[in-house]
Order: sequence, then C-alpha cells, then structure tokens
Amino acid sequence: MSCDFLDLALPGVQKLSPYVPGKPVAELARELGLDPAGIVKLASNENPLGPSPRVLQAIQAELAELTRYPDGNGFELKKALAERYGVEPAQVTLGNGSNDVLEMIARAYLAPGRNAVFSAHAFAVYPIATQAAGAQGKVVPAAGWGHDLEAMAAAIDAETRVVFLANPNNPTGTWFGPDALRRFLAAVPADVLVVLDEAYIEYSGDDELPDGMQYLADHPNLLISRTFSKAYGLAALRVGYAISSVPIADVLNRVRQPFNVGSLGLVAACAALEDKDYLRRSRMANAAGMRQLEAGCRQLGLDWIPSRGNFLAVDFGGDAGPINQGLLREGVIVRPVAGYGMPSFLRVSVGTEAENARFLAAAARVLDQ
Amino acid sequence: MSCDFLDLALPGVQKLSPYVPGKPVAELARELGLDPAGIVKLASNENPLGPSPRVLQAIQAELAELTRYPDGNGFELKKALAERYGVEPAQVTLGNGSNDVLEMIARAYLAPGRNAVFSAHAFAVYPIATQAAGAQGKVVPAAGWGHDLEAMAAAIDAETRVVFLANPNNPTGTWFGPDALRRFLAAVPADVLVVLDEAYIEYSGDDELPDGMQYLADHPNLLISRTFSKAYGLAALRVGYAISSVPIADVLNRVRQPFNVGSLGLVAACAALEDKDYLRRSRMANAAGMRQLEAGCRQLGLDWIPSRGNFLAVDFGGDAGPINQGLLREGVIVRPVAGYGMPSFLRVSVGTEAENARFLAAAARVLDQ
Repeated sequence: MSCDFLDLALPGVQKLSPYVPGKPVAELARELGLDPAGIVKLASNENPLGPSPRVLQAIQAELAELTRYPDGNGFELKKALAERYGVEPAQVTLGNGSNDVLEMIARAYLAPGRNAVFSAHAFAVYPIATQAAGAQGKVVPAAGWGHDLEAMAAAIDAETRVVFLANPNNPTGTWFGPDALRRFLAAVPADVLVVLDEAYIEYSGDDELPDGMQYLADHPNLLISRTFSKAYGLAALRVGYAISSVPIADVLNRVRQPFNVGSLGLVAACAALEDKDYLRRSRMANAAGMRQLEAGCRQLGLDWIPSRGNFLAVDFGGDAGPINQGLLREGVIVRPVAGYGMPSFLRVSVGTEAENARFLAAAARVLDQ
Repeated sequence: MSCDFLDLALPGVQKLSPYVPGKPVAELARELGLDPAGIVKLASNENPLGPSPRVLQAIQAELAELTRYPDGNGFELKKALAERYGVEPAQVTLGNGSNDVLEMIARAYLAPGRNAVFSAHAFAVYPIATQAAGAQGKVVPAAGWGHDLEAMAAAIDAETRVVFLANPNNPTGTWFGPDALRRFLAAVPADVLVVLDEAYIEYSGDDELPDGMQYLADHPNLLISRTFSKAYGLAALRVGYAISSVPIADVLNRVRQPFNVGSLGLVAACAALEDKDYLRRSRMANAAGMRQLEAGCRQLGLDWIPSRGNFLAVDFGGDAGPINQGLLREGVIVRPVAGYGMPSFLRVSVGTEAENARFLAAAARVLDQ
C-alpha cells in the first residue's frame, strides 16, 4: 500500500482545489514591496464603513472572558435571531461564517452516490463542499449570467439531495424574484433540501427580491443561509447562520463543531443585529458607491452585470488577467473570476467613495497602456 | 421516499450524539435563578488567570479591521509557529480550535469501510469525528485509565487509517513516556496516520512526557495537534493547529474552511506565543492549584487519577451524578464523565486558589448530606 498521504486521502479530497480568497493587502505589499497603507482592496465584498461602534463596545465588554470557551449553544444569538425572524431558536444553526453552514449541509446530506444541483457562475463553495463530501455536482447553465430556476428544477433527479441557490448571486450579482422562487419551490420534490443563500440580501432593499424567511413556514425542505460578514461588517469574526425547519437544524447541529463560533463573534453579532443605523448606512453607502462604479465604468466604455450585491462584475471584453495584473501593480486588489467561467470579468467590491475612485483611475491607466 | 430530514441525513450523522460541553455559567444561573457572579465553573479546563495583557493589546490593535476577512492562509501565525518548532510553514495547519484539526483529519482520511483506533476514556471528539465520517471506531481498553499503547498498535488492521493518541489524556490526565511513544511509532505501519493530541502538553513541564515535535522528522505519518485554548488562555477565540509532514498538511489545508480562524484569533495567538511570562505563570498557578486540589481531596477521603493536565478526575466511589447535582446547587460547575465510561468520577479543572477552595468546601457539604 502507498504511504503517500495524498493517495491515502479520500478520492473527493484528493482532487479538491481549495477556495481562493481575495488577495490580502499584506500579501500584495510583501510581493511588490508596496506600502500596505497605500493599497486598496476591493476583492472580498467587505463592508467599507469600518466597524460599528456598538459592536466595538460589545467586544470590549467581553474581553475579560477570553480564557473561557464560547457558549456552544449560542443561546443569546439564537434567541435574538429567532425573535427577529419570528421563528424558534431550535430552527437556527450558527456557523463559523455562512461557509460553515454550507459545509455542514454537505457533510450531513451529501456523499458518494448523491448529488447537488447548482448554477454555473454561482458561489465557489457549492462545488467545493459537494466534492469534499464525495458527491457529484450537477452544474446547470446560467441564463443571462443568472440562475435558470426552471432548468435547475428539471435537473433534479432521484439522487439529488441538495439544491444550492444564491440570491443575489456572487460573483455575478444577479437575482430572481418572488414568483420565480415560488414556482421553483413548488416544483422541487419535498425530500430535496433547498439551500437559499442570502449572504447579500441586506443590500437589496426592494421587493424585487423575495425575503426567503417568508417561505419557510410552507416549505420544510427550505433553508435560508445568511451572514454577518457583509452588510453587518463582521467578516473578521466569522459568524453566519441558517434558519430552517427544526429537523434540518437538528441534523446540522449534530455535525456542527461544538464551539464553531467564538465568543467575540457571538456578542458582536448580537450587537450588530441591534444596530439598525449601521445597517442603514451600509445600504446607503453601497447604493451610492454602486452608482459611482457604474458611472465610472460607463465612462471607461466598460460593460457590467447589473448587481443587487455590494460588488459589480465588470466585463473587460477579453482576457481580464493582464488587467488584473496591471491593477495589482497600481496597488488595487479586485477579484479575478476566471475560475467561475468568467475570464473577461473582474469582480469589484463597492468601497468607499475614495476607494472606488482609486479603482476607476487605476483601471483608466491600465486600459490606456 | 421519506421527507424526514433526519432519515435523509447520512447514516453516521443520524446516530450522532453531539459533544456535550461544560455547562455555561449563564445557563446554570438561568436554570437555578442564581447570581452568575457567584458561580464557579471548573468544567472546561479553562485557564483561570484571565487574559494576557499582550494578547489584549494585540486585539485592540486589530479591532479597526473587523469588517475585513481574516488572512485565510494565516501567514504570520504559521510563520511564528514554524520558527518556534523549527519546521516549515507548509507543515502547519491552522484550526478553529484543535477540534477543527481533529475533524479535518476525519473528513480527509475516514469514511465507511475505514476505521480509527483510539483508547477507552479518551477525548470524546475522536469517536464523534470518526462516526460523523461514517467510519468505524475501534476502542482499545485502557490500562490503569491510561492508553495501552501496545494493545492499540495490535488493534491496527488493514482498514485502519488513523490512530488518535492524547498525551496527557483528557479527561483522565494520564500520560505515557518517550520510550512508550518510540516503541509505538516503530510498531505502526507507515500508511497509518498517528494523531498525537497534545492539547495539554504545556502543563507537563517535565521529561516524563515526550515532546511530540521531536519525532516528526523520523515519522512522516505523525501529526501533532496543539491548541491555544488551554495554557495560552485563548479558548474564546478558537485557535488550534497541527504540525505534520507537508503532504498531510497539504491534504488538511484542502479540506480546511478558507477562513476557519478569525482575525482576532490570529493576532492573539501570535501575541500569546511571544508571552512567555504568561505561559510560565499558567504553569505555576496550575501546579499550585493541583497540589491544593489533591490535598483537599485527600482530606475528604477521595481518590483521584494522577494528572499531568490542568484538571483532576476525582473518584466519588459510586454514582457521581447526585454529587454533581449537589455541586450545581452550590453554584459549582464541574464535568460529569459518565459518558466516558467513568460514572463514579467528576472532572475538576484547576481554578484559582479561591475557586479550588469553593469546590472543596462545596464537595465537603455535599458529601456530608
């Protein structure tokens, strides 16, 4: 037998290419010998407002307890989320970011011989988590960069256990409306888990997007995944959650690591949920920044995919790789999305007004070269 | 087909009983209407010193970056750990606590048809992670509450992929010496991954326990798992790590969640690693507290298992359940270990002098009843 510990790993794991995150500022600074303070990062859909003062206050109050384990049941945060959404705490599953929620679903419901359905150009963690579990991923071609929900429903077969939907979708920013979701849920067999990933839902702020929570009561096979990493501004602390029927939450809590969310994340998320002013400012700053990016791209003659997220997929009309390299040399980090089957695009997160301007000016210079 | 989402989960997951953590102070306060400030928790092997000032400083400096994702590669912490242990950063895998490391191992190397070997009375996460992966757990009877390494080596068969060792072991506190480890490593086939869990190694401070790091160079199938949750006092922040040969680290980093360790955990761990004074004080306080608990138990006529950890398994000579209930009513939380096949024991963490005294006085009253 081989003593190669890559050969000895499970087949799904051997072929796994890990998720490629946005390049950290410190890494680019090291690589190019740049001053980190001069680098603009618009690569990870982070909230440009900086932390909420109420969140900082909650963290300060918790620092004395650093040597203590977190509350593994997340009692206070589950209570707060349950009250906010009118559900029971037993319907809540907390995750180390919503990434953790997505992986728990794969570990609980996917395995060799089972499959998961998701869209082309959808969030990279769906195929990664599916493959890590040894299951098959069924990729459904997109319609106009967005989910083709009818084709996705038609792709479900007897071995399908999970369907992943993202609304709005990352990295395209595309979305579907309430009627489309209603038709989809009606078409999906009751034994297939529908994961509706609403990581960016707080930015949409209009009725064009359904609020997934409204559909839970009628669909025991529906799970809504959300995060504190985006509009709530807590990416550093890793807090996400799922709301579902009790049996699904019960299963996910069995595979959940006992202390998957840290203590500072728990108190920060409770404070963030209360800080309605911060959320309102996040939305407003995002809407203004989105208009700024769109106007700037128009001026540069660049096309983009209309987005309901806090990011814009900008089409550079050819191989965007050299454009990305040029932007990096300018000290501007955005996200290449060739791995999402979008080689001509770069995904640009909405930053502060100054950051957006830095990106647009750098892009103008790079395009001129 | 069933629409019961427990039935639809994978077989290993359906039968999973999650890890039962120490009862949180707030929970006991809610249940018994007690003042949380008056409750003593000696149930989770937490560091009683409170946080290190250097750690607090590092956290303060990082708070401005809360809206940013952590460095998914953990560059600085891996570099610091690699320098400390004289290994390459590519040999390091960071975990959301060492619990995360143990689960990554199971997800990468265990599946139905494979098995893992571990000792009776060993850490509960070994059987849980094994079962969650659908693999078989081979439990080897203990010798004098400790690992019977010869029997464990003999229990390895063609389907064994992982052996979990804990030194010292939790919840017994037992340990094995360098010669026993050397003989074990020589006896284990080269294609079996040996996980040496040293979560409590920083407390041992003597040559009776081997330093697992010394055996890495000669054993590419060895992985050392350690944590910042105990002697380093960072349980709230969830930081653990593995050191292994590069191929094993490569595989684990494929199954690792991209942002499994939060930003505050990363900077806190770097600061903790530098704070040698805190570590020294942790060891000294633990040694003094251990003597205090042992002397108190002797006075109460109670037996215990000699321990190299920061906890003591105390034998109450019958069903310890009612003793535990009595202690809870006294506002003292310790850990029942009936689930570890030790129904007459309670595991008591070493606390401050005052906390240890509170436990001993409460135990005296409960035993008197």
